[in-house]
Amino acid sequence: MRHFTFPGFYDKRDHLKKSKYPVRSPENSFREDRLKTMQVPPDLKYDEKGLIPAIIQDSRDNRILMVAYMNAESLNKTVETRLTWFWSRSRQKFWQKGETSGNIQRVKEIFYDCDKDTLLIKVDQTGPACHTGEQSCFFRSFNEHGE
Amino acid sequence: MRHFTFPGFYDKRDHLKKSKYPVRSPENSFREDRLKTMQVPPDLKYDEKGLIPAIIQDSRDNRILMVAYMNAESLNKTVETRLTWFWSRSRQKFWQKGETSGNIQRVKEIFYDCDKDTLLIKVDQTGPACHTGEQSCFFRSFNEHGE
Repeated sequence: MRHFTFPGFYDKRDHLKKSKYPVRSPENSFREDRLKTMQVPPDLKYDEKGLIPAIIQDSRDNRILMVAYMNAESLNKTVETRLTWFWSRSRQKFWQKGETSGNIQRVKEIFYDCDKDTLLIKVDQTGPACHTGEQSCFFRSFNEHGE
Repeated sequence: MRHFTFPGFYDKRDHLKKSKYPVRSPENSFREDRLKTMQVPPDLKYDEKGLIPAIIQDSRDNRILMVAYMNAESLNKTVETRLTWFWSRSRQKFWQKGETSGNIQRVKEIFYDCDKDTLLIKVDQTGPACHTGEQSCFFRSFNEHGE
């Protein structure tokens, strides 16, 4: 049946199967392949200012790192670049996390909740996430004797 | 110096030290003791509607379960009862998570972020957190091939 496909197709796959690089297939997909299919759901609910809160979670230990706000454009930039982009409510401008500090967040996966009004973004965090130098922005508790 | 305290004080402590029940002390405090000191920070920042978002995290595996909004009164109720109370923006009323379903959240610890405008509440979740029956409200991802 080989003559029904373009010349060399099976040869290339056979060659790859024998090489150290695995053949990409639905059963054997690269994580990068899966990330390529990332799509913004069309029915996300933004608030009256056009914003949606994004919880940033460390993909390695599930620690919550920070919360910031995105608008539709910064979310698209985040999906395109696989780096987190937010909308600063106080400065009224886009900012990429780590743009100046170098403490960037590589996006691994984006979830949204049942109400479609909150995002949960799992990232690989470089350096501390908080501007104070703490790993997480949630470093203080209501419990005076807390750890 | 024993005569400066009330009679039997040291005897009781000595008795407890030898028993299977540990004596409570700053060095050897019960978790319950520490929870008793939980206090709402006076300078939390609520939004223009008097609300603050609360991220609810499973204390056992750090999974994010849901996000809901509290006002000052529901936060006080949460601290007092050690159960989560929210303010429903759509129904304009208080609701206690699990009040009807039984899927309650026992509060273990409350954190707040560097901006003091977001809460992170670690809970022991009974049953699923989401009204859909899913364990977490964040059960859908942008990735069509995601898990």
